[in-house]
Amino acid sequence: MHCIEQHACFGGSQQVWQHPSTTLGCTMRFGVYLPPQATQRPCPVLYWLSGLTCSEQNFITKSGAQRYAAEHGVILVAPDTSPRGDGVADAEGYDIGLGAGFYVNATRAPWSTHYRMHDYVVDELPALVDAHFPTSTARAISGHSMGGHGALVVALRNPGRYRSVSAFAPIVAPSLVPWGEKAFSHYLGDDRAAWRPWDACALIADAGERLPLLVDQGEADEFIDTQLKPELLRETCARAGHPLDLRLRPGHDHSYYFIASYIGEHIAYHADALHG
Amino acid sequence: MHCIEQHACFGGSQQVWQHPSTTLGCTMRFGVYLPPQATQRPCPVLYWLSGLTCSEQNFITKSGAQRYAAEHGVILVAPDTSPRGDGVADAEGYDIGLGAGFYVNATRAPWSTHYRMHDYVVDELPALVDAHFPTSTARAISGHSMGGHGALVVALRNPGRYRSVSAFAPIVAPSLVPWGEKAFSHYLGDDRAAWRPWDACALIADAGERLPLLVDQGEADEFIDTQLKPELLRETCARAGHPLDLRLRPGHDHSYYFIASYIGEHIAYHADALHG
Repeated sequence: MHCIEQHACFGGSQQVWQHPSTTLGCTMRFGVYLPPQATQRPCPVLYWLSGLTCSEQNFITKSGAQRYAAEHGVILVAPDTSPRGDGVADAEGYDIGLGAGFYVNATRAPWSTHYRMHDYVVDELPALVDAHFPTSTARAISGHSMGGHGALVVALRNPGRYRSVSAFAPIVAPSLVPWGEKAFSHYLGDDRAAWRPWDACALIADAGERLPLLVDQGEADEFIDTQLKPELLRETCARAGHPLDLRLRPGHDHSYYFIASYIGEHIAYHADALHG
Repeated sequence: MHCIEQHACFGGSQQVWQHPSTTLGCTMRFGVYLPPQATQRPCPVLYWLSGLTCSEQNFITKSGAQRYAAEHGVILVAPDTSPRGDGVADAEGYDIGLGAGFYVNATRAPWSTHYRMHDYVVDELPALVDAHFPTSTARAISGHSMGGHGALVVALRNPGRYRSVSAFAPIVAPSLVPWGEKAFSHYLGDDRAAWRPWDACALIADAGERLPLLVDQGEADEFIDTQLKPELLRETCARAGHPLDLRLRPGHDHSYYFIASYIGEHIAYHADALHG
């Protein structure tokens, strides 16, 4: 594992690291922000999962999250959104293949060779991060759109692993919307029963542990009615008795301008859970 | 003039506008951030001039400036860095032609046809901005690298036009460094006497008005010794009695991570002058 970018930022250091991934069978990159406090003591980690078409760069260059991470003494880790490289399967469309791993473990050829983003995010990446950086044991997770789906699913599938979870404009019910139906049929096959463990609303209906969910959703989001459907999350949580703080934000769209406007509130929320 | 992007952001609106420019003879774009206060009353304007290779996008997506502009009730305007379009002259290299207008009025062919960024930034753009947005009469200017040079030169050449000026990692003496020598010999010709009115250090030596300069410079900036030379600015200001607050920032490089870390301090500084 080696550092390919390093920038002073808000008293800490924004870095990008590259490493061979055994889980994914390719070379991967991730961003890590070390707040100033990390030179003094172990700090908790907030994992950020990005959306369709993103690499490790989008969040670290556009969200403005470092300012808040520096205030709260939280390490930020932002992985890429799919396996990468010449040997990695791809297909037509921004919503499948490279940049569109959907944070599942694919079971269907050709995807099953490399597309195991769930295990990468949950196991391999935290092990690497804990081995190389001054982390405490406390973790949280968040993400945007496809990465919001990822954050919710990863937290719900792994009870006790994360102190807190949040999402911006997540795909809450991928089994029921075009982005999810396309990705899941490629990665998991046509049997919809196999999709259930990768669908946040399905997981909430079945959940034992009830980790509260913080979700921000722009009301002017161009994907709200076709792909995101926050009302399904509200109904599912109400039915299951799952704690949900769903914040509908008038005028906001699906862009990083939306994320930048509220990432400070999310980091403060996670910091409370992580330092508590 | 028409709006091609509009995003809710920190209670205000980040927009991108496109218009035909009579000064430049081409179609131009600029970013404008309207803080929440702009719906209630006229607000002052901070103009931001970007560096080499940038468009109107870099500052608005990477600086995180909107948060501070919203706090202080300041409109941000970020133009492109050169004329654009099929008929506009270009040449090999990122440091000349498209994306590298250097905020001068070119006098040599083929550049003189379109490259009049000084007059665009000082006259045409503010007239458009004042006609279309709720601006007060108070203006300030800042920028980065080539745009830091631009901000200093524009303020020094136009006494009384700006309430305050600042720069991040500016090219303070373009006549004496490779970037400036290349650009000025193309745009202005080989007679170095013609370069003097476009060189911040030369203008300071000759200045009447003494508008204070706020400059941030990263000490780990990869261009500090070859292109930026902040010591020349310090010496020139000391000799001329020109007020300068030069802040050397340990560890910081030339990137937007540097700008993001201190843009809040610059906007607070400009807000004091603009609202004063």
